[in-house]
Amino acid sequence: MLEELKIRVLNANLDLVKHGLVLFTWGNVSAIDRTTGLVVIKPSGVEYEKLSVDDLAVVDLDGNKIEGLRPSSDTPTHLELYKAFPALGGVVHTHSTFATAWAQAGRDIPFYGTTHADYFHGDIPCARSLTKEEIEGEYERNTGLVLIERFKKDGLDPLEVPGALVKSHGVFAFGKDGESAVYHAAVIEEVAKMAYLTEQIHPNVPRADSFMMEKHYQRKHGKNAYYGQDTK
Amino acid sequence: MLEELKIRVLNANLDLVKHGLVLFTWGNVSAIDRTTGLVVIKPSGVEYEKLSVDDLAVVDLDGNKIEGLRPSSDTPTHLELYKAFPALGGVVHTHSTFATAWAQAGRDIPFYGTTHADYFHGDIPCARSLTKEEIEGEYERNTGLVLIERFKKDGLDPLEVPGALVKSHGVFAFGKDGESAVYHAAVIEEVAKMAYLTEQIHPNVPRADSFMMEKHYQRKHGKNAYYGQDTK
Amino acid sequence: MLEELKIRVLNANLDLVKHGLVLFTWGNVSAIDRTTGLVVIKPSGVEYEKLSVDDLAVVDLDGNKIEGLRPSSDTPTHLELYKAFPALGGVVHTHSTFATAWAQAGRDIPFYGTTHADYFHGDIPCARSLTKEEIEGEYERNTGLVLIERFKKDGLDPLEVPGALVKSHGVFAFGKDGESAVYHAAVIEEVAKMAYLTEQIHPNVPRADSFMMEKHYQRKHGKNAYYGQDTK
Amino acid sequence: MLEELKIRVLNANLDLVKHGLVLFTWGNVSAIDRTTGLVVIKPSGVEYEKLSVDDLAVVDLDGNKIEGLRPSSDTPTHLELYKAFPALGGVVHTHSTFATAWAQAGRDIPFYGTTHADYFHGDIPCARSLTKEEIEGEYERNTGLVLIERFKKDGLDPLEVPGALVKSHGVFAFGKDGESAVYHAAVIEEVAKMAYLTEQIHPNVPRADSFMMEKHYQRKHGKNAYYGQDTK
Repeated sequence: MLEELKIRVLNANLDLVKHGLVLFTWGNVSAIDRTTGLVVIKPSGVEYEKLSVDDLAVVDLDGNKIEGLRPSSDTPTHLELYKAFPALGGVVHTHSTFATAWAQAGRDIPFYGTTHADYFHGDIPCARSLTKEEIEGEYERNTGLVLIERFKKDGLDPLEVPGALVKSHGVFAFGKDGESAVYHAAVIEEVAKMAYLTEQIHPNVPRADSFMMEKHYQRKHGKNAYYGQDTK
Repeated sequence: MLEELKIRVLNANLDLVKHGLVLFTWGNVSAIDRTTGLVVIKPSGVEYEKLSVDDLAVVDLDGNKIEGLRPSSDTPTHLELYKAFPALGGVVHTHSTFATAWAQAGRDIPFYGTTHADYFHGDIPCARSLTKEEIEGEYERNTGLVLIERFKKDGLDPLEVPGALVKSHGVFAFGKDGESAVYHAAVIEEVAKMAYLTEQIHPNVPRADSFMMEKHYQRKHGKNAYYGQDTK
Repeated sequence: MLEELKIRVLNANLDLVKHGLVLFTWGNVSAIDRTTGLVVIKPSGVEYEKLSVDDLAVVDLDGNKIEGLRPSSDTPTHLELYKAFPALGGVVHTHSTFATAWAQAGRDIPFYGTTHADYFHGDIPCARSLTKEEIEGEYERNTGLVLIERFKKDGLDPLEVPGALVKSHGVFAFGKDGESAVYHAAVIEEVAKMAYLTEQIHPNVPRADSFMMEKHYQRKHGKNAYYGQDTK
Repeated sequence: MLEELKIRVLNANLDLVKHGLVLFTWGNVSAIDRTTGLVVIKPSGVEYEKLSVDDLAVVDLDGNKIEGLRPSSDTPTHLELYKAFPALGGVVHTHSTFATAWAQAGRDIPFYGTTHADYFHGDIPCARSLTKEEIEGEYERNTGLVLIERFKKDGLDPLEVPGALVKSHGVFAFGKDGESAVYHAAVIEEVAKMAYLTEQIHPNVPRADSFMMEKHYQRKHGKNAYYGQDTK
């Protein structure tokens, strides 16, 4: 079942290791098949080097396991995101070093340059931390809900701002599929490192100009985008 | 004698290199066989790439060498820890970069997020530096004693807080066996780096919420833990 | 056409990866054949590991594509630089981490030591950010023009100051050919990291002495240079 | 001539690359044969991966080339050190990142912990920068002389403090042979990184206790040293 998607999700999980975004088992990638509504996700606590296609968990949007090992404990977060944002095809969770430091600092990552604007149409938001009730209740589901709350409140499109932090926790990245979500997770880590260094080199540095943001975002993603090769 | 344990201790020592926790010979792993009360430990000053199973030192809890090369000069520290904490099966010492910087700064590593709480039930403590008398006396044994002093004073369980710093010195990590002690040594280094960056990004950042600490620690280690696969 | 130059440009692009100067496709190298006035440049958005000699784009100085895939979107920046500075044989663009942080901070990289002076005869300049009109107009061409504006204003020779930053953007490095431009891109990144650390270790550190600058620059590049082997 | 020493010096130079202490050709190792008074040193500007035994330069203590390619431009610095300190068997020069940042900051690296004390009996000194006259005169020879001036002024033994910085420049490390000089160059870089981080984590941190310095230095290097295996 979903063999092709499983192979892609397996490779996307291994790409987390290749990009230096995870230590031990501290991350996971999922992707959704929108036709069947089934989600393929990394199993909980399994080392990347031992992960096989058959280990991958398949769950429905209500969280029922259909196949494979026990799914990642973060599965309810992924499912809430897929339910709230129908355009999403892939979700990634990491504790990558620099981005997690911004999450622990409880700060949005400000737009300081074109590296950021090439992929994020605005600051990278940091969702609020969960309340005692939210943590002691359905914790992982509520983690998804505070992310969604922040995107709704600010009117953000998760394909235009394909990732966010959760305060005192870590990173969630999004994409049209698992591969692009991993790509965005790598961008967040690099942008987080650059933003940290930028503030060290120039304390109180202002954000870059918003018209530069527009230009760089649109030349890659807008109607008249002219970056890359035609793929039609 | 203890052939299986020696192979495991050898591999655990090599994992220090794999995780980037040691430069040259600056680290060592030991594990104890609680049935015989014998401890297997890295020999002193031997390069990891030249280390063989037969080189490993076997000592009793009084420090008498039973087999192998001369044991690590840090052996008396390991032995005090094994004697004080019967639940420990493995001990690691490193000078890993970021954690050692916290030790040199003489500060506990504060709990800033879930990466920390997944493994440490509270701050990572920094034991006081040794007095002149303690250093000029049985130095390595006294290093163990100041660690134990700190754990007793704060009522800490070394399997719930599986590692600590010694002021102006370095890192000691613990576990139920050598492998888990190495795992915790790697966690300490990563958490030390993240905590350092967190304070740079947000000076005077407060600790994360204690109920988040409880939740994350318990979902991995508590009675109703639901992280990972069933291993029964 | 220009087969030898294409092979060299391909290898120079791959050297960006080897030196850790690029993530994904975030950089490009070009070189010019001054006899024909043709420029060989990386195609837009193609991954380095998939890049072949035939993929490389060949364009004339007016930007007309002669051969290969669609050229890098940064091509107009390269072309302006080749037109303004006839001595240039190669141009590189990167978003390397530390240098980009200086660009995002909007600061010239100050001369703090001999590592810098061995290759840069003065501070590494940061060109101003573009105006709204410049960005919404011929953006990439105008990026070249603000670099040229800064070099002309300060009377800088791009072979003596073989690289610069563009505010809120990234790095451009120059050379007599593509290989030396890549070399200088690597120097800029290392010097950017050292300068950042220098200011952290000693806030308000003054620049190094100008006579040291002269000595180090001239012993490598002056009339009586005595570094390296005679290559005649 | 000196074939065995040449092979050792070649390998010691390659170890600079292995330890991540050099970018491009920015470092060199020499060793002296005290019987003949001849010094083997890396040739100037030759890439490490192309370096062969026959390329190595052999010079006498007056700087006359006896064999091989043109010696490193830093050769006169090495020679002054060998002449001033008869116990030295090897000298290394690098621009390693963190140590060079301390040199650019013009600061001694303070003793903050046992990692430092295991190899350096006191702070790692930073020699003053050269005057205009010293730079415009015999620059490389004078670089050696300011190092010697600092060691004499403070009564330092270069085998007990086996390395130093030169302000606005870089690192020189020493040893009884080339291999130990490279070892000390790697220690300096790691200690420089740790000391930088220590000050970031705790501004105005005091030095560690001097009796800890004595203990750690003596247990490795004193009369009754008990670190490592007996090699007799």
